[in-house]
Amino acid sequence: MKSRSAIPAFLLALCCLPLQAQDIQVTSVEDRTAARGPETAYTGVGIAEFMFLPDDNSDLAGARITFEPGSRTSWHSHLAGQYLIITSGMGWVQARGEVKRLVKAGDVVWTPPGVFHWHGATTEQTMTHIAVWQFVDGSGGEFGPLVTDAEYLGE
Amino acid sequence: MKSRSAIPAFLLALCCLPLQAQDIQVTSVEDRTAARGPETAYTGVGIAEFMFLPDDNSDLAGARITFEPGSRTSWHSHLAGQYLIITSGMGWVQARGEVKRLVKAGDVVWTPPGVFHWHGATTEQTMTHIAVWQFVDGSGGEFGPLVTDAEYLGE
Repeated sequence: MKSRSAIPAFLLALCCLPLQAQDIQVTSVEDRTAARGPETAYTGVGIAEFMFLPDDNSDLAGARITFEPGSRTSWHSHLAGQYLIITSGMGWVQARGEVKRLVKAGDVVWTPPGVFHWHGATTEQTMTHIAVWQFVDGSGGEFGPLVTDAEYLGE
Repeated sequence: MKSRSAIPAFLLALCCLPLQAQDIQVTSVEDRTAARGPETAYTGVGIAEFMFLPDDNSDLAGARITFEPGSRTSWHSHLAGQYLIITSGMGWVQARGEVKRLVKAGDVVWTPPGVFHWHGATTEQTMTHIAVWQFVDGSGGEFGPLVTDAEYLGE
């Protein structure tokens, strides 16, 4: 599995205006770009809008991600875990070796550090969530293989 | 100014089921309670739903807060800063010694560590935001005085 050892340039390009330490900083929708996640990390269309990324001030990252029915992330893990706040629709989340869970708008999902998992829409609905996670030494996590149809449709 | 040196019991009571380190954890709206913030920390009605709080796994906290027109937090600061993701409506944010800023749905606000500030609705609209911040040594921040009408309505 490939380790993501730094923040990829494409993420920084999609996201935020530079932040300064002194002041309250406001970024608007107009300052950001929503774009399809790469085929190495998503099966199907997953549209990611990075809302904040680690900088000199904070090691937090936040992104809003919308999945079309049938689409999902690859298997991956986060060094410091990750919270997902489901803001609309319905989806599935699964950790390696665990059952697949149905999640819906209003649910909050916690995946502990280092646990390989995936998240995505169900076959019939879109899902949008806000993901919040913490980088550790410049790394947001580790990416693994795509989730096969058998895995996605299984229990 | 009063230091919040631990997570108040009322926050823990409002929030989340116990998390375990091993598994993905899902909490639903049904597991949480939205309630008015205390009069010591809010002027007017600010309804807070704590979505996650620090535990053995993570020092992150997340809350969805809705302000009625005219309502706002007290002056306060966060030890590790705070992100606000404005999810609906329109509001104001202001740091001590800075101008008041208008924020609206889609905006993301970063307040650096230790900067005293307030956030709330405008006089005419509600505002809802998701706040994400990090506790440091069990403390989410420091609370100061209520925001006077002159401060709230000023520039």
